[in-house]
Amino acid sequence: MSKAIPEPVTNLIEAFSRLPGIGPKTASRLTYYLLRTPDDITLQLADALRDLKAETRFCSVCYNITVDDPCAICSDAQRDAETIAVVEEPLDVLALERTGVYQGRYHVLHGAISPVNGIGPDELKIRELVQRVVQEHILEVIIATNPGLEGDATAMYIQRELTGKGVKLTRLARGLPVGSDIEYADSVTVTRALQGRSEM
Amino acid sequence: MSKAIPEPVTNLIEAFSRLPGIGPKTASRLTYYLLRTPDDITLQLADALRDLKAETRFCSVCYNITVDDPCAICSDAQRDAETIAVVEEPLDVLALERTGVYQGRYHVLHGAISPVNGIGPDELKIRELVQRVVQEHILEVIIATNPGLEGDATAMYIQRELTGKGVKLTRLARGLPVGSDIEYADSVTVTRALQGRSEM
Repeated sequence: MSKAIPEPVTNLIEAFSRLPGIGPKTASRLTYYLLRTPDDITLQLADALRDLKAETRFCSVCYNITVDDPCAICSDAQRDAETIAVVEEPLDVLALERTGVYQGRYHVLHGAISPVNGIGPDELKIRELVQRVVQEHILEVIIATNPGLEGDATAMYIQRELTGKGVKLTRLARGLPVGSDIEYADSVTVTRALQGRSEM
Repeated sequence: MSKAIPEPVTNLIEAFSRLPGIGPKTASRLTYYLLRTPDDITLQLADALRDLKAETRFCSVCYNITVDDPCAICSDAQRDAETIAVVEEPLDVLALERTGVYQGRYHVLHGAISPVNGIGPDELKIRELVQRVVQEHILEVIIATNPGLEGDATAMYIQRELTGKGVKLTRLARGLPVGSDIEYADSVTVTRALQGRSEM
């Protein structure tokens, strides 16, 4: 059977299969798609992959992905240097930046505490966060971890680490997403929405 | 906002988005996944993409993907040189090879006739098939195009082109898939199964 598939084809199918959410079927469909398309689509993807590893690093201050160190946000004097939003992943920084409302800086943990997956506090950039809070005289830390078990555990751990450091700790509100139907909301979300209700 | 995303990251997100079935969300998830993983997963994918284009070509006989020309199947003297299975895509060759039953050779059309998508007979390797049938003294052509509108149109076109060339023309049986329930089969499939019924 393998006679029918040349090695460069199986190699690419295998390489695609290693990506999350891409099974062997999708991997071979992508590979055969690239075989049929002009070379430049394939080569641009190859170049982009190389550049990603060659040209990006983690910001030494906030651990977001960056080309220059420190990153554009950390070195922007216009931004509020006394507020830090703590997020799990670089993509979360984007979500907050898209609002255009947040003017502070960030701290990327690169994950959340998850005993099931063997991820403890030492695997995350929590020690570095505590250090920043002390050294940079931070006034407020906004914990923006995901609203779920792991995000909650991480938030609680950070809360314990920062207690007594003279910093205000807040967490993003949990409640009904805008545009949603109460009818279809899960009960945990409705509970949170009730607990966090505000005066009109 | 773009300040938060370095260019190598957006470049890779764009390159992934060009692949079929990968939207901007999946593309950025894949990109941020690769940022977190060891370099070699990313570099192996980059190398595999380069090699795919550098090392593979179409077999000059059957138009399947190959490293050596002619391909392993076409140059295998053990295989029946007088039978050709006509398929739409290289992946279809794999499907037939997996059965272990087919001992003939192949001819890959690289698509099916589809007026909606602007694909006519001239975009496919049909002329090359007719030439092979005549030159290689083929006894049987098994049309293994997909059982659908486009596959049917392609099969009928090939039938017309090969009429009078002294070759036996057959087509893969259409009917109930093994292990399926008649109850849930669509009526076109049941019709085909009735028309193609065989004596017990």
